[in-house]
Amino acid sequence: MTHRIAIAPSGFKESLSAARVAEAIAVGVRRVIPDADLDLIPLVDGGEGTAEALALAGGGRLVPCTATGPVSEPVASHFALLGGGTAPGPLTAVVEMAAVAGLALVPPGLRHPGATTTYGVGELIRAALDSGARRILIGCGDSGTSDGGAGALQALGARLADRHGRELRRGGGALHELERVDASGLDPRLARAELLVACNPYNVLCGKRGVARVFGPQKGATPAEVELLSAGLERLADVLTRDLAPAFTPAAGAPVDLRTAPGTGASGGLGAGLAAVGARLLPRYDVLLDGLDLDARLARADFVITAEGALDSQTVRGKIPAEVARRAHACGVPVLVLAGTIGPGAQDVRAVGVDAYSSILPAPMTLVEAIGRSGEFLADATERAMRIMALGTRLAPLAA
Amino acid sequence: MTHRIAIAPSGFKESLSAARVAEAIAVGVRRVIPDADLDLIPLVDGGEGTAEALALAGGGRLVPCTATGPVSEPVASHFALLGGGTAPGPLTAVVEMAAVAGLALVPPGLRHPGATTTYGVGELIRAALDSGARRILIGCGDSGTSDGGAGALQALGARLADRHGRELRRGGGALHELERVDASGLDPRLARAELLVACNPYNVLCGKRGVARVFGPQKGATPAEVELLSAGLERLADVLTRDLAPAFTPAAGAPVDLRTAPGTGASGGLGAGLAAVGARLLPRYDVLLDGLDLDARLARADFVITAEGALDSQTVRGKIPAEVARRAHACGVPVLVLAGTIGPGAQDVRAVGVDAYSSILPAPMTLVEAIGRSGEFLADATERAMRIMALGTRLAPLAA
Repeated sequence: MTHRIAIAPSGFKESLSAARVAEAIAVGVRRVIPDADLDLIPLVDGGEGTAEALALAGGGRLVPCTATGPVSEPVASHFALLGGGTAPGPLTAVVEMAAVAGLALVPPGLRHPGATTTYGVGELIRAALDSGARRILIGCGDSGTSDGGAGALQALGARLADRHGRELRRGGGALHELERVDASGLDPRLARAELLVACNPYNVLCGKRGVARVFGPQKGATPAEVELLSAGLERLADVLTRDLAPAFTPAAGAPVDLRTAPGTGASGGLGAGLAAVGARLLPRYDVLLDGLDLDARLARADFVITAEGALDSQTVRGKIPAEVARRAHACGVPVLVLAGTIGPGAQDVRAVGVDAYSSILPAPMTLVEAIGRSGEFLADATERAMRIMALGTRLAPLAA
Repeated sequence: MTHRIAIAPSGFKESLSAARVAEAIAVGVRRVIPDADLDLIPLVDGGEGTAEALALAGGGRLVPCTATGPVSEPVASHFALLGGGTAPGPLTAVVEMAAVAGLALVPPGLRHPGATTTYGVGELIRAALDSGARRILIGCGDSGTSDGGAGALQALGARLADRHGRELRRGGGALHELERVDASGLDPRLARAELLVACNPYNVLCGKRGVARVFGPQKGATPAEVELLSAGLERLADVLTRDLAPAFTPAAGAPVDLRTAPGTGASGGLGAGLAAVGARLLPRYDVLLDGLDLDARLARADFVITAEGALDSQTVRGKIPAEVARRAHACGVPVLVLAGTIGPGAQDVRAVGVDAYSSILPAPMTLVEAIGRSGEFLADATERAMRIMALGTRLAPLAA
């Protein structure tokens, strides 16, 4: 009997795109089950590679665009235009924040999240509007910023002033000095466009699990800087709510609570900043999986293989393997995860429907070597896991 | 239904004894199959830990003994006396060559296999004879020497002379100068004792797959040193055959061909040196598995887990996982191998009956960290493999 296997992985950060990961896994599976019926479903979460993946999947194209990077130097960036203008509805653009303000664009020596800016995100949104897009999907994730989207608002024409009326300098470290926001200079096309922010709903702007506290340290912030950033983001939420909310509350429904609504903390608070000018914060998979028919494809499989660069305590908080596992589990399909690194808290994934997981590393080595050879390791580790699984098919059921 | 699992691993060199490896695997299995019926069968191959393991298994004791180490400095060593004198037959000692001339005893800066000596092996044999042992089992493996057992012969009273009649200096690097061996001073008790050398039969002294060529490089020899060692070992074989064979040929059967007989290359040629004074070279598992009832225990299991520090092209050439797999495969029992490191040629183990194997490493790290945490990693990796296997039990058979 032919085994039907869905391969629905994330990309591996700074290493392999989701499509390359899916292909490597397929190579490993075929070495053990040559006649397997494979369904490759590379997935993106809004972070690195999202614009390219959606352009590929949706028959669109990448538009190159130089913009301001996270450390305020120009970077070669891009956004995607989907459907080439032939699809029904408004022309849709995809702006991937990581492509202009991602952590990978912040040189290790400059990882001070108080100074990095989302200014380039605003520039990309304007460029997308210039291209005629009237529906803009903003992908969050893998950010190198913690400015609450202040930079993006400035690039879009808002004026952020301190108590002396001076324009605030860039970066989350200045936000505690914010006194007033003037939206009168805001790009008028924003009012006629639909901005959809694909967020991890677990990320919120303020409070104990606020974005500065959860992600600040991995972006390079010291404990003191984390506190300053937290205070600054609280201040930003207060001022934006007071100065912008009346003008930008969506026609239907109550205004978004910029401090605690799901997704306000996305990409260092970019979610909150964009929500303040009328963008809708959406659970990322509702947006990004649109059109993939993922649930039906998972349900058809005998088992599912997903993958992630690092499997750890963050995985269950909205990462791709957790989303895939939750959906597959709901239809009774077992799930295997292949991981570049298994870190503390990885075992939590069992609670969301992961049946088994494996590391891909064959031997002691540096992270740099592991990243450089991840495609080969992934194929080999998939083969090894398939052989262990095949051994299992010869045994009586093990309730695990 | 209860799963019966045989756990029959090797130790991990410089890290965990076979008993500790078996226990760590058992911990991992029990996390997934709490009611598993486990049969722990820690195995040794004659190398590191053999004397201790056999003393433990055979109700014997370790006898501490200071002897000459591989770089001619005194080392705290030991041999084992089995059965405490109460077992039937002659008192048996176990001399583990790695405990006095192992690679781990050669400081990395002194890894010149032309200079290291098995002198201490001869001293341990004499100490075992002093203790009343008349049956001496010599375990080979993990050696740091390439002297063809010349040092051991010297310690036992043989005189190795160059063409000027001068005593040869220690180490394989001097053997090409050997002119004559005088056995008249040899310890007379040797003639009345039974010396059994537990060898890897794949290891031969001379020729293209001779011990200097296969193992010299990993003991630290340069290509030029490998050639010098090879020439020296050929010379040693010639002279020993000429000068000693007439006196020491076993009563039954033809003399051993010191150049090519199975096991002559064991431990840098120690096998050949000892065979020249009447020791019998035996396939190591025939000796070391004696009394374990291994085949019957493997046959009773639903599957077998074995393990090794490094799985590579050497594994099929007589390492423990290959021996276990060959025996388990013969009775149709599937075999999983857990490995600290998976190296080139690992896939060859499938041909000897290994169904699946897995690495134990969860993340990029140094070899030193991997060695330091191998017990924890082994338990965790066993758990992961059991969960993958359990997933397999839910699927239709996969012929792999």
